[in-house]
Amino acid sequence: MSQGSGAENISRVAFIGLGVMGYPMAGHLARCGYKVTVYNRTSEKAQSWVTEYGGKSAPTPAQAAADAQIVFACVGNDNDVRSISTAPDGVFSTLSAGCVFVDHTTASAQLARELAQIGRDRHIDFLDAPVSGGQAGAQNGALTVMVGGEEDVFERARPVMESYARAVGLMGPVGSGQLTKMVNQICIAGLVQGLAEGLNFAKRCELDVEQVLEVISKGAAQSWQMENRGVTMNRDEFDFGFAVDWMRKDLDLCLSEARRAGARLPVTALVDQFYADVQARGGGRWDTSSLIQLLRNR
Amino acid sequence: MSQGSGAENISRVAFIGLGVMGYPMAGHLARCGYKVTVYNRTSEKAQSWVTEYGGKSAPTPAQAAADAQIVFACVGNDNDVRSISTAPDGVFSTLSAGCVFVDHTTASAQLARELAQIGRDRHIDFLDAPVSGGQAGAQNGALTVMVGGEEDVFERARPVMESYARAVGLMGPVGSGQLTKMVNQICIAGLVQGLAEGLNFAKRCELDVEQVLEVISKGAAQSWQMENRGVTMNRDEFDFGFAVDWMRKDLDLCLSEARRAGARLPVTALVDQFYADVQARGGGRWDTSSLIQLLRNR
Repeated sequence: MSQGSGAENISRVAFIGLGVMGYPMAGHLARCGYKVTVYNRTSEKAQSWVTEYGGKSAPTPAQAAADAQIVFACVGNDNDVRSISTAPDGVFSTLSAGCVFVDHTTASAQLARELAQIGRDRHIDFLDAPVSGGQAGAQNGALTVMVGGEEDVFERARPVMESYARAVGLMGPVGSGQLTKMVNQICIAGLVQGLAEGLNFAKRCELDVEQVLEVISKGAAQSWQMENRGVTMNRDEFDFGFAVDWMRKDLDLCLSEARRAGARLPVTALVDQFYADVQARGGGRWDTSSLIQLLRNR
Repeated sequence: MSQGSGAENISRVAFIGLGVMGYPMAGHLARCGYKVTVYNRTSEKAQSWVTEYGGKSAPTPAQAAADAQIVFACVGNDNDVRSISTAPDGVFSTLSAGCVFVDHTTASAQLARELAQIGRDRHIDFLDAPVSGGQAGAQNGALTVMVGGEEDVFERARPVMESYARAVGLMGPVGSGQLTKMVNQICIAGLVQGLAEGLNFAKRCELDVEQVLEVISKGAAQSWQMENRGVTMNRDEFDFGFAVDWMRKDLDLCLSEARRAGARLPVTALVDQFYADVQARGGGRWDTSSLIQLLRNR
């Protein structure tokens, strides 16, 4: 059925998980001419997707994967990935030898290694491939994909992923994509807290915060977060962006992996606790820049 | 002697403090055609400066200021500023009414307000004007100057400061320059610690750190520090840049001002403690990116 490693003519793909990221990602695949079969836990969304993009929807991950040459997944967490891959009606139960399973979920490096091992036993190749760029990046086909796996597998999957990515990088062996994404989130956590402390201080000192941002964003304090979140933080607007609930999930992965690797993360661990405080105030869906709220209301 | 507020034809200036910043800043003034009289605590440096740029050197701040229309200072800290300004042989003892005293030292906002008051009593105008851009910025005449003071005074001094600045901004009343510089340092403290934790984690996880930096610096984790210090941090190179001793001095100002303003700085205060640890290891002269050292050696 499946053509396996005949990578030159990949035409049939499956996409599992049509959330805010997966829905537009699968859409880009359809627009690029791939025959896409989708699966989503709530089938209404899969129906909407088919209405919008054509293609087919399947009632289980196994049925979505049955005829695919590459299966992509983008779901919530480790458990969700297991339930669509290794469970009885999961992807591994039908995906043919020689095919590739690409997991775009931000999940643990450990899970990636487990799935790669399960794949190896069945001659199925695996790539861990978390993304960054957010909902806007997914919609505009401008994601960054951080991939862990073997080079020949990566080269087979890369042209397909370029349907929705601006940059696709092989970071090392299986798990390296997840680890790279963790580095990204660790850098962001400390950075956003520092920015929050700076902007709250500026307001308390009665500075014109937007003018301050304009000046200091030209120098050594400059960051993407400062340029893209500074003004909204100052205005206490958080109703968009990357949700605190998602960040806490990612930081949990970082802190667990750091424990294994023997890496100290003192500020990351502290900021994770601050995010817990934001959740406790009902801000789980707010953007990560909402850390400033904890400084405002004393 | 002094022409006071005849700002259109300012030609005689004084520069107090020829450190790594002041030396090239005063040099730019001389190159732009101003008649510069310099003062430096160790007179050998003032002699070298005169040999290099022409102009005159004076044995006391008072004598340097006596004939100047604008006096610039760039010294170490609050106490140094007092000793060159309000002390018996300080700038205020000779500077004529209608002239301007511009303090480029990173110092407290409180000191700026005090000096402005002393100046007002003598009809001398004061601007607090800390800079960012580091030694390279001073040498290339590309500093950012954050100014606090009155608009007409600012407009008189601005063309002169543009000799060594790429951007000169009036941030608000006296003290606002210092407060803006503090916001800058607060943002940097948390940011650099987050970056250190991310890069140390990456190395412990055996990722190719430079490749990781290349990928994540295109997204939401991007920062000036990541782009300009990431690779050197990963290589444990700290023999350049903005010294930890200077950062601790600045963070002391931030933490004191935050106490006054009722602004919480939990991560900034923690990172300040980490910088104390770097100093205890003999790293006071290392670049601020040396925070990663504390994570390396457990």
